[in-house]
Amino acid sequence: MKRRDFLTASALAGVATVCGAQRVAAQGQAARDSWMPKLTPPERPAELNLCLQWWAIPGNEMNEKLDFLEANGFAAVEIPSGDWPIKNGEAMIEALKGRKLFLSTACGPSDFSYAEVEKREAEVQKFLPVIEALGKMKSVGLIICPARDKLSEPGRLSAKELRKDFVENTGKRLAQHAAKHGTSIVLEPLRRHETPFLRQVADGARIAADIGPGASVMGDFWHMALEETSFMGAFICAGSLLTHVHIAGLKERIIPGVHPEADQYVDGFKGLKLLGYRGAVSFEGGWPKNPADAKKEIPQEEKIRLIRNMVKLLREQWAMA
Amino acid sequence: MKRRDFLTASALAGVATVCGAQRVAAQGQAARDSWMPKLTPPERPAELNLCLQWWAIPGNEMNEKLDFLEANGFAAVEIPSGDWPIKNGEAMIEALKGRKLFLSTACGPSDFSYAEVEKREAEVQKFLPVIEALGKMKSVGLIICPARDKLSEPGRLSAKELRKDFVENTGKRLAQHAAKHGTSIVLEPLRRHETPFLRQVADGARIAADIGPGASVMGDFWHMALEETSFMGAFICAGSLLTHVHIAGLKERIIPGVHPEADQYVDGFKGLKLLGYRGAVSFEGGWPKNPADAKKEIPQEEKIRLIRNMVKLLREQWAMA
Repeated sequence: MKRRDFLTASALAGVATVCGAQRVAAQGQAARDSWMPKLTPPERPAELNLCLQWWAIPGNEMNEKLDFLEANGFAAVEIPSGDWPIKNGEAMIEALKGRKLFLSTACGPSDFSYAEVEKREAEVQKFLPVIEALGKMKSVGLIICPARDKLSEPGRLSAKELRKDFVENTGKRLAQHAAKHGTSIVLEPLRRHETPFLRQVADGARIAADIGPGASVMGDFWHMALEETSFMGAFICAGSLLTHVHIAGLKERIIPGVHPEADQYVDGFKGLKLLGYRGAVSFEGGWPKNPADAKKEIPQEEKIRLIRNMVKLLREQWAMA
Repeated sequence: MKRRDFLTASALAGVATVCGAQRVAAQGQAARDSWMPKLTPPERPAELNLCLQWWAIPGNEMNEKLDFLEANGFAAVEIPSGDWPIKNGEAMIEALKGRKLFLSTACGPSDFSYAEVEKREAEVQKFLPVIEALGKMKSVGLIICPARDKLSEPGRLSAKELRKDFVENTGKRLAQHAAKHGTSIVLEPLRRHETPFLRQVADGARIAADIGPGASVMGDFWHMALEETSFMGAFICAGSLLTHVHIAGLKERIIPGVHPEADQYVDGFKGLKLLGYRGAVSFEGGWPKNPADAKKEIPQEEKIRLIRNMVKLLREQWAMA
């Protein structure tokens, strides 16, 4: 019996045992299957691993902050880049012992667009020990923006030169160093006002793919809201190269849920589910203005209320996706 | 009864009437539904509308070419740009009467990257009457590449300047003219060797969205194979802005099916099905070399065999998507 005959016989046997309503349902399914794409479910289902950046976590001491995350439904923590991982790495490794939290990324400024090779080299040398520290901490990776909005200024590479140099030299060396130390570099696309170079997730994914092992990409809902046409499509383009996600309000770059009518993440979450994404979804943005006094931050208890509100909102939208 | 209670009660009632195996299946479905995205089927299912470019259609006379298309399972025809639509528009309108073929796009060179405003204006003026002719022919639109690989040369706009000028001026005026005449401009992303400006479908979609009515985007499998990380993701990013697709071999830019091991379009076709895409899928590429004499084209009967082979291959892969 050929495979095709076997499948037909099996299908007929199945139909013979079902009632009329089920047959109609089966036919409806068959008709839909003729034009609906056969999407392969991911090997492991996706998880919504909520995360906060260090500055946004209530508490002063390291353990106080980590306690807050665990008590409020967070699965991951994001730390500053620069020399923070080098200075605080060992204490963080100790503080994370026995906790369910994982260390997502380290986030901070970077720039590899200098025309002078010495300046680019200094930037590479600055990040090599940071990457080593992140490897020891079992961090997902170091967030890198290859260029800010400086490309049109004198002393900078053109976009084409930067892409070539980053893929073959600066970015590749950082990625290889990261792979060696069990972590990665995580390319972050930004809004056009912040960079003319890397604005879309699919472009970052292609750069990461061109670099090879140790390079990955992230998506930030705030930047994506302006630069992408589809949250879901953009995430699918990133595929298994997606290692981190930032989230903020889509109308204002503040904590999600302050403008719930605008803060719609279901389409993007569909993309993450299709990928079987298990990285962090981390809030990067500000607090809303203090209505009582614009010069002061909102009170701590209001921040905690907004954080809990965000957790509830994102879980609801994840369930809808 | 709240909506949640109602849904729970309905689900329980459903389970109560099915046998054990069905209950397991239903539970499996429910478990899957908790993490698989709920993709909305398109209002109308997608169609595979195969198309050939004018030069590639066997036959000398207009009607001979159109007869070939209809006899060999094609749904659309693609014509040259330049002054072809102006010269041949009325004859084509006549020849298409009573046929099931639709006119997809007009394809030819364009360049809006000149720093001199007069040169950009000349390019706009050149295409305005072409757009009018395409409108009369009920064509899908005029393919536009905003820039070829000239951006680094003197006398050209920077990528940032070009984007702004194209969105606010040259591209917008062409798109508005197209919308007025019932057609569109169709932005085509190209490989990095052909342009540093517009390389990804998502970027073209974002530019088209920024321009507004009359602007759309296309995907060319040959360019996408190098520049995208996901055919499906890229098409989803384009969404309803996708009005045209070019197809060629993915290993060599020749007719699909010569290297069937490399010519895999199922992932891209999944994306088209998700969109409910009903535009054309049009072959743009060359013929394989003539093994008997490299200086001569392959014989006409071999071209016809390869065209029929492509139709079969693409239909098979569409069914698999």
